[in-house]
Amino acid sequence: MWMARRSTAFLTVDFAATGKQVGALNIPHSPHDDAWGTTRIPLAVIANGKGPTVILTGGNHGDEYEGPIALGELIRELDPGAIQGRLIILPALNIPAVMAGTRTSPVDGLNLNRTYPGDPAGSLSQQISAFMCDVAYPMADAFVDLHSGGSSLDILPSAIVEPAESAEHHRRNVEAVLAFDAPLTVVVSNLGETRTSTASAVRAGLTTVGTEMAGGGTVGIDALRICRRGVRNVLSHLGVMEPDGAQAPSHGERTILEIPGEKGYVFATGDGAFEPYHPNGTRVSAGQPAGRIHFLDDPARAPAELTYGQDGIVYGRRQPGRVRPGNCCLVVAAPFRGDLA
Amino acid sequence: MWMARRSTAFLTVDFAATGKQVGALNIPHSPHDDAWGTTRIPLAVIANGKGPTVILTGGNHGDEYEGPIALGELIRELDPGAIQGRLIILPALNIPAVMAGTRTSPVDGLNLNRTYPGDPAGSLSQQISAFMCDVAYPMADAFVDLHSGGSSLDILPSAIVEPAESAEHHRRNVEAVLAFDAPLTVVVSNLGETRTSTASAVRAGLTTVGTEMAGGGTVGIDALRICRRGVRNVLSHLGVMEPDGAQAPSHGERTILEIPGEKGYVFATGDGAFEPYHPNGTRVSAGQPAGRIHFLDDPARAPAELTYGQDGIVYGRRQPGRVRPGNCCLVVAAPFRGDLA
Amino acid sequence: MWMARRSTAFLTVDFAATGKQVGALNIPHSPHDDAWGTTRIPLAVIANGKGPTVILTGGNHGDEYEGPIALGELIRELDPGAIQGRLIILPALNIPAVMAGTRTSPVDGLNLNRTYPGDPAGSLSQQISAFMCDVAYPMADAFVDLHSGGSSLDILPSAIVEPAESAEHHRRNVEAVLAFDAPLTVVVSNLGETRTSTASAVRAGLTTVGTEMAGGGTVGIDALRICRRGVRNVLSHLGVMEPDGAQAPSHGERTILEIPGEKGYVFATGDGAFEPYHPNGTRVSAGQPAGRIHFLDDPARAPAELTYGQDGIVYGRRQPGRVRPGNCCLVVAAPFRGDLA
Amino acid sequence: MWMARRSTAFLTVDFAATGKQVGALNIPHSPHDDAWGTTRIPLAVIANGKGPTVILTGGNHGDEYEGPIALGELIRELDPGAIQGRLIILPALNIPAVMAGTRTSPVDGLNLNRTYPGDPAGSLSQQISAFMCDVAYPMADAFVDLHSGGSSLDILPSAIVEPAESAEHHRRNVEAVLAFDAPLTVVVSNLGETRTSTASAVRAGLTTVGTEMAGGGTVGIDALRICRRGVRNVLSHLGVMEPDGAQAPSHGERTILEIPGEKGYVFATGDGAFEPYHPNGTRVSAGQPAGRIHFLDDPARAPAELTYGQDGIVYGRRQPGRVRPGNCCLVVAAPFRGDLA
Amino acid sequence: MWMARRSTAFLTVDFAATGKQVGALNIPHSPHDDAWGTTRIPLAVIANGKGPTVILTGGNHGDEYEGPIALGELIRELDPGAIQGRLIILPALNIPAVMAGTRTSPVDGLNLNRTYPGDPAGSLSQQISAFMCDVAYPMADAFVDLHSGGSSLDILPSAIVEPAESAEHHRRNVEAVLAFDAPLTVVVSNLGETRTSTASAVRAGLTTVGTEMAGGGTVGIDALRICRRGVRNVLSHLGVMEPDGAQAPSHGERTILEIPGEKGYVFATGDGAFEPYHPNGTRVSAGQPAGRIHFLDDPARAPAELTYGQDGIVYGRRQPGRVRPGNCCLVVAAPFRGDLA
Amino acid sequence: MWMARRSTAFLTVDFAATGKQVGALNIPHSPHDDAWGTTRIPLAVIANGKGPTVILTGGNHGDEYEGPIALGELIRELDPGAIQGRLIILPALNIPAVMAGTRTSPVDGLNLNRTYPGDPAGSLSQQISAFMCDVAYPMADAFVDLHSGGSSLDILPSAIVEPAESAEHHRRNVEAVLAFDAPLTVVVSNLGETRTSTASAVRAGLTTVGTEMAGGGTVGIDALRICRRGVRNVLSHLGVMEPDGAQAPSHGERTILEIPGEKGYVFATGDGAFEPYHPNGTRVSAGQPAGRIHFLDDPARAPAELTYGQDGIVYGRRQPGRVRPGNCCLVVAAPFRGDLA
Repeated sequence: MWMARRSTAFLTVDFAATGKQVGALNIPHSPHDDAWGTTRIPLAVIANGKGPTVILTGGNHGDEYEGPIALGELIRELDPGAIQGRLIILPALNIPAVMAGTRTSPVDGLNLNRTYPGDPAGSLSQQISAFMCDVAYPMADAFVDLHSGGSSLDILPSAIVEPAESAEHHRRNVEAVLAFDAPLTVVVSNLGETRTSTASAVRAGLTTVGTEMAGGGTVGIDALRICRRGVRNVLSHLGVMEPDGAQAPSHGERTILEIPGEKGYVFATGDGAFEPYHPNGTRVSAGQPAGRIHFLDDPARAPAELTYGQDGIVYGRRQPGRVRPGNCCLVVAAPFRGDLA
Repeated sequence: MWMARRSTAFLTVDFAATGKQVGALNIPHSPHDDAWGTTRIPLAVIANGKGPTVILTGGNHGDEYEGPIALGELIRELDPGAIQGRLIILPALNIPAVMAGTRTSPVDGLNLNRTYPGDPAGSLSQQISAFMCDVAYPMADAFVDLHSGGSSLDILPSAIVEPAESAEHHRRNVEAVLAFDAPLTVVVSNLGETRTSTASAVRAGLTTVGTEMAGGGTVGIDALRICRRGVRNVLSHLGVMEPDGAQAPSHGERTILEIPGEKGYVFATGDGAFEPYHPNGTRVSAGQPAGRIHFLDDPARAPAELTYGQDGIVYGRRQPGRVRPGNCCLVVAAPFRGDLA
Repeated sequence: MWMARRSTAFLTVDFAATGKQVGALNIPHSPHDDAWGTTRIPLAVIANGKGPTVILTGGNHGDEYEGPIALGELIRELDPGAIQGRLIILPALNIPAVMAGTRTSPVDGLNLNRTYPGDPAGSLSQQISAFMCDVAYPMADAFVDLHSGGSSLDILPSAIVEPAESAEHHRRNVEAVLAFDAPLTVVVSNLGETRTSTASAVRAGLTTVGTEMAGGGTVGIDALRICRRGVRNVLSHLGVMEPDGAQAPSHGERTILEIPGEKGYVFATGDGAFEPYHPNGTRVSAGQPAGRIHFLDDPARAPAELTYGQDGIVYGRRQPGRVRPGNCCLVVAAPFRGDLA
Repeated sequence: MWMARRSTAFLTVDFAATGKQVGALNIPHSPHDDAWGTTRIPLAVIANGKGPTVILTGGNHGDEYEGPIALGELIRELDPGAIQGRLIILPALNIPAVMAGTRTSPVDGLNLNRTYPGDPAGSLSQQISAFMCDVAYPMADAFVDLHSGGSSLDILPSAIVEPAESAEHHRRNVEAVLAFDAPLTVVVSNLGETRTSTASAVRAGLTTVGTEMAGGGTVGIDALRICRRGVRNVLSHLGVMEPDGAQAPSHGERTILEIPGEKGYVFATGDGAFEPYHPNGTRVSAGQPAGRIHFLDDPARAPAELTYGQDGIVYGRRQPGRVRPGNCCLVVAAPFRGDLA
Repeated sequence: MWMARRSTAFLTVDFAATGKQVGALNIPHSPHDDAWGTTRIPLAVIANGKGPTVILTGGNHGDEYEGPIALGELIRELDPGAIQGRLIILPALNIPAVMAGTRTSPVDGLNLNRTYPGDPAGSLSQQISAFMCDVAYPMADAFVDLHSGGSSLDILPSAIVEPAESAEHHRRNVEAVLAFDAPLTVVVSNLGETRTSTASAVRAGLTTVGTEMAGGGTVGIDALRICRRGVRNVLSHLGVMEPDGAQAPSHGERTILEIPGEKGYVFATGDGAFEPYHPNGTRVSAGQPAGRIHFLDDPARAPAELTYGQDGIVYGRRQPGRVRPGNCCLVVAAPFRGDLA
Repeated sequence: MWMARRSTAFLTVDFAATGKQVGALNIPHSPHDDAWGTTRIPLAVIANGKGPTVILTGGNHGDEYEGPIALGELIRELDPGAIQGRLIILPALNIPAVMAGTRTSPVDGLNLNRTYPGDPAGSLSQQISAFMCDVAYPMADAFVDLHSGGSSLDILPSAIVEPAESAEHHRRNVEAVLAFDAPLTVVVSNLGETRTSTASAVRAGLTTVGTEMAGGGTVGIDALRICRRGVRNVLSHLGVMEPDGAQAPSHGERTILEIPGEKGYVFATGDGAFEPYHPNGTRVSAGQPAGRIHFLDDPARAPAELTYGQDGIVYGRRQPGRVRPGNCCLVVAAPFRGDLA
């Protein structure tokens, strides 16, 4: 049989054209209420002169807002003449989740960021990640994926390094992430997870920058400011834009943290409401009490105390008070122990 | 390890027997409320003498009724002695969706017609398509799949040509589709979609006939009449039945249309109610206003107008007034530009 | 205890002001995701000089689109100087249902048109109907409520008379409805239902006009045209606008129909797909076969035939093919037997 | 007919006994999965000597955690010998919502705090509020209801005054609320809403104290500390406990704020993500830009700016970034203009 | 205003006619998918000669099958000539719940048996109970309502006495219930619940018989046999039918039990799986261990033991192993302490 | 590209340690409400001396309770010194389903026991089965998987033989299953299903024992007793524990039954309530009436009778009375015809 699992997606922009185009990636999708329609994913191409191609995405998770807002502004405000190279911007990559305000897609229930490298003939989320891996990454030099903590986590605003196999690639990533100039720079491997946008971008050889901008499912005033600056800083670093004097790196420090494996996480062991003892940013030690779970349906039962498993600083905490066993209550970051070459 | 992803489906009919049998394809399925039960898909075999084997299916989508009704009548009314060959009839192929009255399956959420060639150890929809590809197609010469527009589309009643790679196969399909004698004959490739019943039947070498019979999720009085006649016309064409004098081809014309790629579709760009300007069948031109989206929550905001992207006739329109970005509002068909050999 | 079940709703328009205001009726509503927010119901007031106050509503059911579209146009296009009197226009009265595209409200599951006279301290639908009965009706002289058949019914476009107790009031309603100049004029009492917007408007003494504009959940091209004209015709009849020469009554005929009680309805008796035998508008007789129910999961079982219970014309039919026992398959209208005074 | 809408609820504690009892209010409830079971609402009675009866409740909304945690601690830690009077404590009043972590009840979909005075034969939420009004309030002198902002709002921690009709009662409430010694004291009438726990407690004559402790659906470290102190402060003020030297009032200031009606709220006008311009606590003026709504599905469309309607301080803001029209984005508090007698 | 909350229900049978009629009670109901349809509740009238009118209902809860099956047989098998009087039989009173196989109605989420005396203009369940109280009960002398334990309870098959205020009425009920001749006869007041079919029938003066026939949501072979016999026994007792020699009372014993208030129930106190120690019918004592709750997510935690609160026999037990706090795990019945006059 | 679909799961126990450890298998899972959390699956390791490694699992389906209860007891009660070898116990393998009390997983909708051999980068159920196949089975000698009938089936308590390819392996399985000493021993191939835990354990070479312990979704008193004994019997047979004199095999008989293919099942053909004619354990013959389906919405329609397709004993029956076409109503077991070597 002749058959390929080929994509039926199509675009309303021309990747080869110069100037600014705002259009859409259309993925045909045939649910009950729209037999022959498409999912329209906003996509802009801004190109001028010679220079690298940079992909910028927001809205990989639908409840993380700083990325979509900052990239929408970039699309509306950037003068193509101000750049050398090409920007491919998808500010609301997971558009069904973005419009629903949920982390995971209401269409197929999947977490887009656990579907890479995707499947052009799979469900909608898998088709989105397949477009990124099969079409977008191969034409790009660098990738910036803007995340925040989402509805369930409140995280210290930070720029994220996705680990790379080769020392050269790792250093390239670290330099680009430091250029973002977030208050913190953190190496996050998600326990070695391979199915993310950044892990697959790194496998494709791209210089890759991630972020975690506050969270709690809200729009952070400070986080948004950091994100706006950081995107332009990275584009300057990559040579696409002129450095903006008013936006010169300010944090100076180049300390790099990491989430040191499973011991960095404090997971709930019971079903109740979690009371943390320390705000984000507090310096803590392994074995120190971290908080406790109150059993709301049985006020006579003593709360269950949780402890940190790692020395470091409190890097993130659960936003919802209600916890069930296994929920991530706290995350501790520690100095990066890897080789920065 | 020895293991095959093999099917546990079983049948209550004997494909080798002569006469009329009405039974079921049973697919073991083990949900919460029925650990050891099956999904019963109605299946009839009507066989007599020598002649081709024709598979006829309805209810691939559960909200398209002309096919299931016409095939149910065929099962009840056809005298086995009136045919030469074998009919394998599944009038409600996607039985869970048919009983729910929905396009997609309530069991696994999938659109059956995007699951071919299926998986015998996959979810229920995948098991149905695997049965068709692995068991049914290999024993058949021809395939008739009766679709209508469904809940979301109202389409001009037409017989559909699925493109084939070889000129001979394409001509074979076209002749069989023209024999159906619908008011229109249209080549539909669904933007090159490979995961449909007809695309996979063509890949299996079968002479293949599709339909789109009105729609709107209702039972069309005219569409039902066309469908009843068309099925018998095709069976005559294939040599299974005698031509019925009372049912001789009447439309005479052999003009063939096609959906000319993505430009044939008018997609919604906003969130509101779509007002079309022209009924189905109107001749229109690329660039001409096609309708407009009214913003129901903001009556002070002017509607957004949409335009046709292609010369042709209005072949289908969205049934629900409510639209969201990406929804298919209108479809334009144009004369087929391919080679009819 | 001192306590009244009082409303906390508030408006952003001034009913006493002259000119055109487009604002909202805000009903505080405190669900999980918006503790202190409101439901915003679009509302416009257009007032000039002396003349009657007329309330116009659309979107009582959220899947009936001609009313919201025609009233939105009226809001945007009407020059206040062109009227004498006051228009209070709520084009999307049941805004949560309108945005969901459903008949019933997604907020409380209720059919707004079965909640009158409402409850200012009840659920959201009850608060909407209470606003109409407690605040809007008392300041008005006339009421126009624009309905269509909705997702489940396809109805011949018609203007509707809500019966009144007094002969004078009934005659007043009939004259206003005839002024609408729809293809048909029908008295509909919904089997004596008292919980509708129009029944409660009549109880409040208002001259009342209803409509049923096609349906099937779609936007009818003809129905929309009839509706646009009809609204302006009624406003002329009421003395709010000058008659428009181009819009002079054209149907001339003043025949009035009615749904003659429960015998006018053909209800499904089984679970399957309903095949009607006649299109809307066909003249039929009591006892005549009306259609039949095909049992989709058992093609060997003979269909069940239904018959008309009343002489008349087929006034409406069910849009979805799928029926369950009790579903309304067909409606027959007959000449009005009441006294038109 | 003899029939009363009487309650079938029963208790496992004795309101007349001395000492500490931890039991439950049981409300028989007969859903699909538990025909003869009950809803168990934790309830403690701590009584000793002579003194007033104070009811303390938390978990009126299920996503507000400081109250349930602080009251659970009070139950476990308080020595009955340390009080004079009686405490009736329901730390998780709306237990189904508390266990679900939602504002509204998963059982009947109602917001408990919009069901007072309830109905002993109504749905579960109505039965809970009926128990409070019919059984609990009549045996009490004072009422403390501990709320937080919940999932949708982040509010400056404050103690809340529910307005009373009589000057004496109002003063009594104000004094008790000031004794709580929160950073802010605010009069909140919820636009005159009568269906709340505190409005009905005031109607029953009880000295009434409310709170809004931070929010965002999380457990606030500071808010929890304020809440723990505040409860003990109020109990001292009411004469039930000895004042604790270590907990003496510290805020000193007795400035009282209010939400000045509908102008105090900034509501969303569009569908997107809301970017606030100012953090909570900022002093702002009527007419000043407050934030803007970014349209996530259309990055080319300029954001819509919202403005404050009132001078004052930003008292609360929406937690989720995603907004739909009518959502409360910001709340402004202004100095209380009423008479404090 | 003239307005009554009147019913729009209508019947397809004539209560005054002689012979056997099988038709329906139709309650107009206007949901999203059927604007003008009805809910069809099967209803039969069998009448002959002179004698009392007896109402028989099954399917008050939709997961209790012995009643609907036995009453369906009675409708099909009973020769009208064999009776003196009139039977009004509704074997599937709560037809939406019956077709869903759930205790509560899928239409409005209500437990029909907690809605009496209903509301003719309320939700569907309320309209059903209003029909019973307003239309059916006033024309009847006796009422038989056939329940089983349902999905959540397995109960010893028994006939149930609903308490009556007057001694005469109570004795009348007891005699009719004893005539049913179930293995057990039990007085059940549901803790004084007034909103049931039988409580309202007693308030209407009818001789009233209830049952609890096994349960677990299944069809009990023995329970069905007892139920078939019992219905005919009661009809003989009431003088509607001749006593059937083959069906003469066999249990002889007239011991009457009761559920002795809240102490008769063993409620879950934790969240896990309940292991009972004794099968139904075991004689137990107050204070004796009854079973224990295993905490499935924490195998290291010791189970929590529950004890009986009452001497008696184990009358019923929870069917699902999974329990949450408040679920009814066991029910104990004890000898009736009331006056049997 | 370098990429493996590798697992991110981690454990809190050490498989190489001696003694008793109770911890968890943690599978990172990133849904909307817990971005960086895990699913915690309880897991215990009990090891001592030399001997085989045996894996014991319960809660493969979440509504089967005897296994989780018996294995929880084993974890709490077993003294490591009493064994020679290693036990790896997962009493609630499908923890999300166990906590929901459902057969299938509420997380991904899958039946865990149709996902083997799983996928370490798939959905949660697929990750669980991948852990078993990739990590657990390779370190084990034997596998005991404790099932019951679940919510939908009531089955005679039995120990189950999973067929093996080789005679030696089959005999090894049969001997271990007979050692369990259940009232019945049955060979169950699930129509050749390959995607189960036991089929994949056999493919991995493990001595494999299954069970079906009563069912109906309840905790069977007898079934629990059989299960407790059986587990210890099997461990003795495998040489891990000393035989317990008090628990010596009692059933003596070694008759082995099987489900003889699709003829062993009686499937529903209609939509109604199924009345069985015989209790479990009855001896029946092919062609004999087995029960009938009552059509609850049409009491005038005669029930449809079903017949047995096989001689044997009634081994299981459907628990819910409500049936739809294809549901398994009854299962017949017959003497095993295979070779027991």
